[in-house]
Amino acid sequence: MGVKVLVNGIGVIGKRVAEAVKLQDDMDLVGVSDIAPTSVLRILLGKNGSLRGTKLYSSLKEAKPIMEEAGLQVEGILEEVLGSGEVEVVVDCTPAGIGAKNKPIYEKHGVKSIYQGGEKAVIAPISFVAVANYEKALNAPSARVVSCNTTSLTRTIYALDSHFGVSEVFAALVRRAADPWNEKKGPVNAVIPEVHVPSHQGPDLQTVLPHINIITMAVKVPTTTVHVHVVRGKTKKDAAAEEIREVFEDSSRIILIKESQGFTATSELMEMFRDLKRPRSDMYEVAVWDESITVVNSKFHWIHAVHSEAIVIPENIDAIRAVACIETDKMRSIEKTNKSLGIY
Amino acid sequence: MGVKVLVNGIGVIGKRVAEAVKLQDDMDLVGVSDIAPTSVLRILLGKNGSLRGTKLYSSLKEAKPIMEEAGLQVEGILEEVLGSGEVEVVVDCTPAGIGAKNKPIYEKHGVKSIYQGGEKAVIAPISFVAVANYEKALNAPSARVVSCNTTSLTRTIYALDSHFGVSEVFAALVRRAADPWNEKKGPVNAVIPEVHVPSHQGPDLQTVLPHINIITMAVKVPTTTVHVHVVRGKTKKDAAAEEIREVFEDSSRIILIKESQGFTATSELMEMFRDLKRPRSDMYEVAVWDESITVVNSKFHWIHAVHSEAIVIPENIDAIRAVACIETDKMRSIEKTNKSLGIY
Amino acid sequence: MGVKVLVNGIGVIGKRVAEAVKLQDDMDLVGVSDIAPTSVLRILLGKNGSLRGTKLYSSLKEAKPIMEEAGLQVEGILEEVLGSGEVEVVVDCTPAGIGAKNKPIYEKHGVKSIYQGGEKAVIAPISFVAVANYEKALNAPSARVVSCNTTSLTRTIYALDSHFGVSEVFAALVRRAADPWNEKKGPVNAVIPEVHVPSHQGPDLQTVLPHINIITMAVKVPTTTVHVHVVRGKTKKDAAAEEIREVFEDSSRIILIKESQGFTATSELMEMFRDLKRPRSDMYEVAVWDESITVVNSKFHWIHAVHSEAIVIPENIDAIRAVACIETDKMRSIEKTNKSLGIY
Amino acid sequence: MGVKVLVNGIGVIGKRVAEAVKLQDDMDLVGVSDIAPTSVLRILLGKNGSLRGTKLYSSLKEAKPIMEEAGLQVEGILEEVLGSGEVEVVVDCTPAGIGAKNKPIYEKHGVKSIYQGGEKAVIAPISFVAVANYEKALNAPSARVVSCNTTSLTRTIYALDSHFGVSEVFAALVRRAADPWNEKKGPVNAVIPEVHVPSHQGPDLQTVLPHINIITMAVKVPTTTVHVHVVRGKTKKDAAAEEIREVFEDSSRIILIKESQGFTATSELMEMFRDLKRPRSDMYEVAVWDESITVVNSKFHWIHAVHSEAIVIPENIDAIRAVACIETDKMRSIEKTNKSLGIY
Repeated sequence: MGVKVLVNGIGVIGKRVAEAVKLQDDMDLVGVSDIAPTSVLRILLGKNGSLRGTKLYSSLKEAKPIMEEAGLQVEGILEEVLGSGEVEVVVDCTPAGIGAKNKPIYEKHGVKSIYQGGEKAVIAPISFVAVANYEKALNAPSARVVSCNTTSLTRTIYALDSHFGVSEVFAALVRRAADPWNEKKGPVNAVIPEVHVPSHQGPDLQTVLPHINIITMAVKVPTTTVHVHVVRGKTKKDAAAEEIREVFEDSSRIILIKESQGFTATSELMEMFRDLKRPRSDMYEVAVWDESITVVNSKFHWIHAVHSEAIVIPENIDAIRAVACIETDKMRSIEKTNKSLGIY
Repeated sequence: MGVKVLVNGIGVIGKRVAEAVKLQDDMDLVGVSDIAPTSVLRILLGKNGSLRGTKLYSSLKEAKPIMEEAGLQVEGILEEVLGSGEVEVVVDCTPAGIGAKNKPIYEKHGVKSIYQGGEKAVIAPISFVAVANYEKALNAPSARVVSCNTTSLTRTIYALDSHFGVSEVFAALVRRAADPWNEKKGPVNAVIPEVHVPSHQGPDLQTVLPHINIITMAVKVPTTTVHVHVVRGKTKKDAAAEEIREVFEDSSRIILIKESQGFTATSELMEMFRDLKRPRSDMYEVAVWDESITVVNSKFHWIHAVHSEAIVIPENIDAIRAVACIETDKMRSIEKTNKSLGIY
Repeated sequence: MGVKVLVNGIGVIGKRVAEAVKLQDDMDLVGVSDIAPTSVLRILLGKNGSLRGTKLYSSLKEAKPIMEEAGLQVEGILEEVLGSGEVEVVVDCTPAGIGAKNKPIYEKHGVKSIYQGGEKAVIAPISFVAVANYEKALNAPSARVVSCNTTSLTRTIYALDSHFGVSEVFAALVRRAADPWNEKKGPVNAVIPEVHVPSHQGPDLQTVLPHINIITMAVKVPTTTVHVHVVRGKTKKDAAAEEIREVFEDSSRIILIKESQGFTATSELMEMFRDLKRPRSDMYEVAVWDESITVVNSKFHWIHAVHSEAIVIPENIDAIRAVACIETDKMRSIEKTNKSLGIY
Repeated sequence: MGVKVLVNGIGVIGKRVAEAVKLQDDMDLVGVSDIAPTSVLRILLGKNGSLRGTKLYSSLKEAKPIMEEAGLQVEGILEEVLGSGEVEVVVDCTPAGIGAKNKPIYEKHGVKSIYQGGEKAVIAPISFVAVANYEKALNAPSARVVSCNTTSLTRTIYALDSHFGVSEVFAALVRRAADPWNEKKGPVNAVIPEVHVPSHQGPDLQTVLPHINIITMAVKVPTTTVHVHVVRGKTKKDAAAEEIREVFEDSSRIILIKESQGFTATSELMEMFRDLKRPRSDMYEVAVWDESITVVNSKFHWIHAVHSEAIVIPENIDAIRAVACIETDKMRSIEKTNKSLGIY
């Protein structure tokens, strides 16, 4: 019997986490919960859906009849199942800020909880990236998986820091404006700067790696593919480009891609994951352009891509394992998760 | 033993056809052929690739050493395998116009051939859309699967014509500018009209359904999702919107989607296929917006979406069956193909 | 002394109308009015601004101190100036639906009013396109200038109808998603169909030309350049493509552009108006692609482009003249307006 | 009598330089030259064109009859007018690399020449940005105006360096993919990294300011508005954000814009220049987001925008003055140019 997990909020992240939980041999998906009869619920719980047979709960009492009227079979109210003792860990994938409102309910029923990066760091005793601080989350009452951008920076900077020490990082984040399905958000034809410096991702990384001196700045651009980071910094111990390349090659959830092999743009990168038949073309890894890894005047530089819909999924799975304390070894959890999701 | 198929040209269409052939229980993929060591070949023939173990041929003699140097294992030259008697049907998925150059080679070796819509209609005795003229292709030496836009129009118009007769059709095609992976083509911010009327799709439909009176016009717009068609016309026998809806519902490879259920835009439509875990989020069906099916002043109207990368894949499979004459019944082939590809 | 005009609402349309009023020798801009200290007010009323010296009013009493605090000099409240007898015509360029709320105020003070196409047709006794029904607006208490899309269709259809009679029109509207400055609206990468048929522009044209049998359908696409219309229909009297071309050539506010002369896309069309130094690169004309004018099977076809920010500006000026009854001859007003705006 | 200038290559830059030359009271535009009957030539030399009456030359002998056939009046061949003594300075605005081919012709006829940033630095003894090294170009046989991105970086870094000394600069360039009129270039939906570090702009800045330690990296994004630079660096002498702001405020051709005043995105920035009626909405200035000027841990940061079509126009005018030696004082030339172009 695995640890009993419920996912609250079946949106971009929640639907992926629920499916990923189902792939684990040490976890059971006891249900999903939401507040409206969305098309994604209809699709995933329907006859060809990946969550067919999964119990559906209503996060709000008043939403139950509306969801039922729309043809969804609702097992009950979220609070009831939380109170029933059937849930050990809830993964809260609700929109930013709602997690904070839900927390007292989870605590009241003694259910452990995982939050997403849209919540403030104070929501949980630990802001989590598996490779960087898995052990700190062991048996914790809750953990917060940091945002997609922060996760990518943490993975890469942690890898460098472990080998060479990192004394300074600067990253310019070129953010995609919207998820691929989202037709409401713009811009159609503009670049939107984040004029407040540093942008929040730098300080957010420090919730995971407090000793790293980092500044981030960000702009938003009209693409729905992936975020792109332009990274520069300094290691404490000298590191040649080739050494950095090797560190990345040996790191989990970091891949190297080459322009010279046809990965000229983020679009071609995503096509690779379509070709690999990853579900939803998801890229769980940080993809670093090999040729961009450069050391000039003792400063390192590279460009990497972040698939915002997918990169935090393996981290959520590891976070469940850590707080439920069903695996105490970081690398064993990471490898288990990787294998289940097809991450090399 | 199934019919022995080789796919020449592993690009957007070819890679999908090759994978689809592998899914059929009455076909064997004896190999794929190409002219360069592309990244898609490396991925698909690689250790996690869908074509792992498939024999690779070089379409050009001089390309073999280049492909081998790049690390690909090349079994031999295309002409050799065509001459060996091991190939019964070749599916030519090379760029527009190359098929015409390849045809004499296929004919010389007595291999049947399937071409794509980029070739001129004269390349084969039959321009093919399964539901409309499968029988005509039975045992033919070759067939040409028409283009994505034409396929979608043929499917829908054929369905209407079978039930009510169609006396006139006009379609305004709002074409996506580029495939999702293609970062070279524009426009970034413009609409490009096809100023020559009719655009080629109308006449192209008449190569399949010669008796249909149709005019098409087209514009290209900056999206990589799908083509959208605005269709209007007249049936010979009066047909209410509800009747047209029923005809579409009963037709193969046509689906109805509702804005009221969240399909507000082409982006949300493609997200459904991501959620359904279709490989590469492929939509083989024509998707008609339910609410748009309207009859005003005896004219019918609707809007549909066409996934240009995917819609012709089932047609290619049916075309192989027809020319190889391994299934004489149209609907049996269509259902077989549909089942193998997860088309409802 | 010219007719005394006030423009209420200094947004996309209002700012252009105010500037255009200033260019007329038979009109005086007595002021502009708004509800917030926007950047456009600061720019236009500022030292290099086109409205420098124009009196600014606050449309809402409570907005006055806020606007003043932000450094704008506010002459008074809108209602006061309306009540002072100093305004003869107010051009309401407020957001859709606000005009209807403002109407009683204008009426109370006996000020004539012009509304924009975002208001319902019932707001005014006449929905206005100069060439089609100028005379009907003579001395009317108010008039509504129809929307950009409807204006373009009315101009072209009216021209054809006058010469040959028009028995049927169908138009597929490929709408730009957002104004160039608007970075909030999407989509980034999708096409959004208007699933309700007919879209509102067809019926809207009938408020100007009630006898025209027209159906419109629409989709929204990710560009900020211009709307593009694909038009098809039938004349009562046979008209060859060359005759239609001549009618358009002779019509006011319609221009013919040729793909063969470099106007391959809407972007190159707009560049022409940049090169011509039109203020804000505004295109007041409907631009019809010459090569697209085609007659097949007695049906006419063409593609035209509509600059939504600009096309209604000359109509607003003519509407002022009509309701103020300072010019009773349609063509004299049109020519006067054209000359002032640099329309050939 | 002013210095006699000819502009060779009437494209994006050339058409603007030609118009700007006409605005100077110490220069005469003796002609423009090109190789094909483009639409821009037709428009600018036409009856409403800004270059009406300007003499047109054919840059290539064989192009003359083609241009004449297309209806353009061609005065003669470029070489003839260069040899006639009527040209003192030619501004070469031909595509990248053509300038190098043209250089021997200019030299043969003893005509001074100005090149654009697409040419390699070796083409001229001086790579030019007015504020940084005007004096060096005095009486030089030729000068190369650096590219748009380099010009923006030079202006801002020079200003800081003059006041505080600059010991290190890093800039991440978020480049627009295409000019607004260009519908051929993509991407529609992707980000294209420049994987080679440093990108060329850093070294290019050093052709103007050799002592500055600078690294640039770049990505291309799907917008046609402007380039956006994310800049970070270190001054030798401590400089507070407020001091940097003051330096920029006092600098020529640098403007500060505020998000808090509505300049949320590059689109709204360009709308300001539309509202200001700048020809073609051109922004000759570097626009720095005021709120983004930040000093953290002794490093400065800011984000600025660069209008690639326009920023080098004033530099070209100053460069003409410098090489023709008609004004020896840098600031006098800059102010003269600024006034003529409406730069504050």
